[in-house]
Amino acid sequence: MLELRRRCGLGRVCALTLRDKGVTTPALFPVVNPRRLTIPPRGMREDFGVEGLITNAYIIRGDGDLAKRAEADGLHELLDFDGFIMTDSGAFQSHVYGEIEATNEEMVSFQTRLGTDLGTVLDIFSEPTDTRTRAKAAVEETIRRAEEARELAGDMPLNATVQGSTFPDLRAACAEALGGMGFAVVSVGGVVPLMEAYRFADLVRVVMAAKAALPPATPVHLFGAGHPLVFPLIAAMGVDTFDSAAYAKFAHDGRMLFPSGTEAAADLEASPCACPACLQTEPRDMSEGELARHNLHLCVSEVRRVREAIRAGTLWELVERRARSHPALLDALKAFYTHGEFLERHQALSERSALAYVGEETLLRPSVQRLRGRFFSRYAPPAGDQCVLVPEGAKPYWRRGPKALREIVGRAGTHVVVKSPLGPIPIELDEVYPVAQSQFPSDLPGAVWADAEDHVKRFVEAAGYESARAWEGRETLAALPEDRRDVDFELWRVRATADYQFGRGTADLLLDGDVSLRISKRTGRVRNVAVDGEHVLSMRVRDGLFTLKAAGATRLHDGLKAPRMRVTVETETAPFNREGKNVFAKFVVAMDQDLRPGDEALVVDEEDGLVAVGQALMNREEALSFEAGVAVRVRDGIG
Amino acid sequence: MLELRRRCGLGRVCALTLRDKGVTTPALFPVVNPRRLTIPPRGMREDFGVEGLITNAYIIRGDGDLAKRAEADGLHELLDFDGFIMTDSGAFQSHVYGEIEATNEEMVSFQTRLGTDLGTVLDIFSEPTDTRTRAKAAVEETIRRAEEARELAGDMPLNATVQGSTFPDLRAACAEALGGMGFAVVSVGGVVPLMEAYRFADLVRVVMAAKAALPPATPVHLFGAGHPLVFPLIAAMGVDTFDSAAYAKFAHDGRMLFPSGTEAAADLEASPCACPACLQTEPRDMSEGELARHNLHLCVSEVRRVREAIRAGTLWELVERRARSHPALLDALKAFYTHGEFLERHQALSERSALAYVGEETLLRPSVQRLRGRFFSRYAPPAGDQCVLVPEGAKPYWRRGPKALREIVGRAGTHVVVKSPLGPIPIELDEVYPVAQSQFPSDLPGAVWADAEDHVKRFVEAAGYESARAWEGRETLAALPEDRRDVDFELWRVRATADYQFGRGTADLLLDGDVSLRISKRTGRVRNVAVDGEHVLSMRVRDGLFTLKAAGATRLHDGLKAPRMRVTVETETAPFNREGKNVFAKFVVAMDQDLRPGDEALVVDEEDGLVAVGQALMNREEALSFEAGVAVRVRDGIG
Repeated sequence: MLELRRRCGLGRVCALTLRDKGVTTPALFPVVNPRRLTIPPRGMREDFGVEGLITNAYIIRGDGDLAKRAEADGLHELLDFDGFIMTDSGAFQSHVYGEIEATNEEMVSFQTRLGTDLGTVLDIFSEPTDTRTRAKAAVEETIRRAEEARELAGDMPLNATVQGSTFPDLRAACAEALGGMGFAVVSVGGVVPLMEAYRFADLVRVVMAAKAALPPATPVHLFGAGHPLVFPLIAAMGVDTFDSAAYAKFAHDGRMLFPSGTEAAADLEASPCACPACLQTEPRDMSEGELARHNLHLCVSEVRRVREAIRAGTLWELVERRARSHPALLDALKAFYTHGEFLERHQALSERSALAYVGEETLLRPSVQRLRGRFFSRYAPPAGDQCVLVPEGAKPYWRRGPKALREIVGRAGTHVVVKSPLGPIPIELDEVYPVAQSQFPSDLPGAVWADAEDHVKRFVEAAGYESARAWEGRETLAALPEDRRDVDFELWRVRATADYQFGRGTADLLLDGDVSLRISKRTGRVRNVAVDGEHVLSMRVRDGLFTLKAAGATRLHDGLKAPRMRVTVETETAPFNREGKNVFAKFVVAMDQDLRPGDEALVVDEEDGLVAVGQALMNREEALSFEAGVAVRVRDGIG
Repeated sequence: MLELRRRCGLGRVCALTLRDKGVTTPALFPVVNPRRLTIPPRGMREDFGVEGLITNAYIIRGDGDLAKRAEADGLHELLDFDGFIMTDSGAFQSHVYGEIEATNEEMVSFQTRLGTDLGTVLDIFSEPTDTRTRAKAAVEETIRRAEEARELAGDMPLNATVQGSTFPDLRAACAEALGGMGFAVVSVGGVVPLMEAYRFADLVRVVMAAKAALPPATPVHLFGAGHPLVFPLIAAMGVDTFDSAAYAKFAHDGRMLFPSGTEAAADLEASPCACPACLQTEPRDMSEGELARHNLHLCVSEVRRVREAIRAGTLWELVERRARSHPALLDALKAFYTHGEFLERHQALSERSALAYVGEETLLRPSVQRLRGRFFSRYAPPAGDQCVLVPEGAKPYWRRGPKALREIVGRAGTHVVVKSPLGPIPIELDEVYPVAQSQFPSDLPGAVWADAEDHVKRFVEAAGYESARAWEGRETLAALPEDRRDVDFELWRVRATADYQFGRGTADLLLDGDVSLRISKRTGRVRNVAVDGEHVLSMRVRDGLFTLKAAGATRLHDGLKAPRMRVTVETETAPFNREGKNVFAKFVVAMDQDLRPGDEALVVDEEDGLVAVGQALMNREEALSFEAGVAVRVRDGIG
């Protein structure tokens, strides 16, 4: 069972619960070789905070003594670990040794006798070198075995593995089949050879093909992802758990893991690390055990970094920065951003942190692509025959003194648009995320500006301005008085923001009547919008977007046909939402496919009766898939 | 006294010795407030490995009790620290409080009574907001005080500080004046307001102006550089030591330092760090002392990382990667790379690690700029009327199968040039650093290829080819036999490499006679070059460049006029070099200004008698400035 707690794009922090064991994801499960405990599992929990680990049922089964103890006492006692234990079943050994001496039936049955928290079907490891025919056969046999395992598993939670070599369509087909069979976890397998060859772009293609084909509520495990280099990227692809023996294997070879890459301990005079192992011993004097402890410390702290980045809404930055650690990761990043539409569906309306420019690829992020897309499809410039284009150089000024610009806006027939690296930004949308919440260097690559210029031209042409002249210099604007609050301008901002956020035409629905704005004395910014004396909208300072009040929700419900903006709940549970209780995913029966996490949502019963308004925390696919967790955080019950 | 140990560009690992105290640079000196020991200095040494610290003589002087104890027992006992102690003298307090109650004379005299290892002149802190007139006055007064302090300091090593606000010419003039006065250390001051405002590009302008005007052997200190964000960059600018109270100040404000930025402890659920403080306590429960310990651990481990990057030759990568941590650092990186010529003078002929592409700015590195520059000025394509251009897409193939390409080269009148992101690479230079020692993503920005294309065009035009046709496909090359070793081609490589490394025409000097190549059976690559039976050159596998043997050195010495390739030593010490002993910098009286660290050098006496050949470890300015250390590592004594 997976419960979504925090998100940043596809990346998510979840509570994963299987049997009575809980793990916070993203989580790394260190591989524990039961015959060679480089770091004792109890120490992993106590000294490293490891909540879950993985061990190999095939290896245990092959060792008479271990097998006997495991069957008699259970895995948790065998390993002296009271956290989550997952077992693998020999597929990786078939990759290494060519063949193994066990059937799927044997492996599943054996695992049921160990008290594992998650057993694994014995799948067919498909190699990157496999022909399509061979890979397809591996997928078919893997699916057959998964079906077989389901029959044998009893009450043991079961993990099935997506195979299909580097063929995205085979990966997708395999994931779709397994995703429909109700496994506790679905893994992506067969990627170790890609990792070892730094084929990270192929890794992205393989994982994204599987992820996009799996139900959102299915926990996704990635086998063999052990280098902290890739942790941010795999988390950004929506991988929940991953395992690796790298901490121990690299230590065995005298190598130290860092989020920026691998270093041979013998090459370092001093360790660039403050973990207990490194503070105690110089790298070249470290034992295998000390190196393993360093490696595990670095791995688990990098996982914590990933989780914090998801919580802070800065996972994109982390992924883009880490991609600079190896040229092959830059290729992987490009491959990742080709999934723009899928990423956008999972991208919250705004992040909790500012968007920081890392490189040209930053402009491919779903938040930026959405800004541009919505701007062109939803924004209607005010009537007028002129447009003043403020160039990028003026940006810092523009940020400091919007009121001066508003004066120009106020002149009949003049409209101000800023040429920003994000594209054309009409001045009345300058507080909307990520416009005001973005940081760029002063000196951007030419290609960024060429791209922005293209978008500005497209806008000026589409808007049909008679003239679009460039801003003539700082003085012109700076000379204008700064002390006048322009209510007309703020009304214009309210209209533009409503259309941007809820769709073109919604401003007319929301603001039909006698509009009054409550403007904050402290910030000079719009706080509340009332129409005919009713509180319709509030504007958030954080992202410049609206929260919808009951009166506003009613107006949109009246004016927009179903399923626009709707989250439909079981009629039986609707009364709870009417009382202001949150909408749980398991009661959602339908949802507007255009709603995104963070969007304002109209909660309706099965007869389209409006019962509440709130903020969606999931997209449609998620709301229909998750069995646990809140789909809409209700703000006001209605009626 | 500074001794150069390892380098990467301007960045350097040195042994700094003052009085009887030694410090390995780059080094961070934590600021110790004698009235508030957040972390006791003894613990800094024992638990953090801190070799030096800085404390404030002005604060000590203002506290009667402290002053009495410091004068009676000395600073080392007062602080219970037996490492290197530097004192500051109140200039920063004048920045904070506007004015201070002490004169330069008083402060210098006071410091002489404390047993400090490095006292500081009381300079005038010039603010970034200062007018030019005001900044100039501050510089003049700072220089006057520096002169005054020199008279008063006795045997106390003295530090003078470069001021001049953000005016690079004033900074340069101040540095030049102070650099000529023989101070033990020269600092760059007045930059804290730039740091606080994230004006990192201005920081670069200010530091580089000072650094370029200072003698290379003068240790450079940077006041107030405490955030690990900037450590790689400031080290890359040749800053040797820096100090900061950030570890304690940020802790006081509940903030945690990371190389990627600052985090509020209250915002973190778990620390992305494995330092002892973070393993013990969750961020939000940390005391000020624990936060300070975390901050200091992160700072000193980042300094270790910088030192390791210098040793490994990967400081460029580290700087470029860290620049992605904040958009303002990207601007700073651009400002840094505008100093291309100055950087190139300090750039070794090759680095010990491969050049890894981080972003477009990678191509501005001095190694790449030098490759392009030398290619156009030193490389002469072989006679022929055709050129085959192999496009980038073929690069992986080209790397795997050079022999197939060599077959094409072998055909009369055909020359093969690879269009690479580094520019046009003739196939016979494909093993020269950084051509073979570079890693690029497959998918590079369009601007990189456009730039490469320009260089290829320029080359094809300059070479006067009748035709320059593009390579027609993988098959053409792959079909050619792979099993023939082409000695003619390798001779061609030897000629091209010699001209590239030593200057156009040197191949004729070196190879005049009966040439025979010794080719490694294992690698298939040239190992030694003999002419008329004499061993002239050896080729290094690591960077594809030559080491010069005595016979080769004699040929170049006979053929090239002084001062080409010469390092002139005092005639009295020349006999030592003839015996094979290294050339120490203090005996160098002249040096070819075109020699770079890593270049092969002809060691001559004052009458231009050739006495040895070896590898230069310094450029001309360094060899003439340093009093300690090796300028040329001698390989063979001659005559």
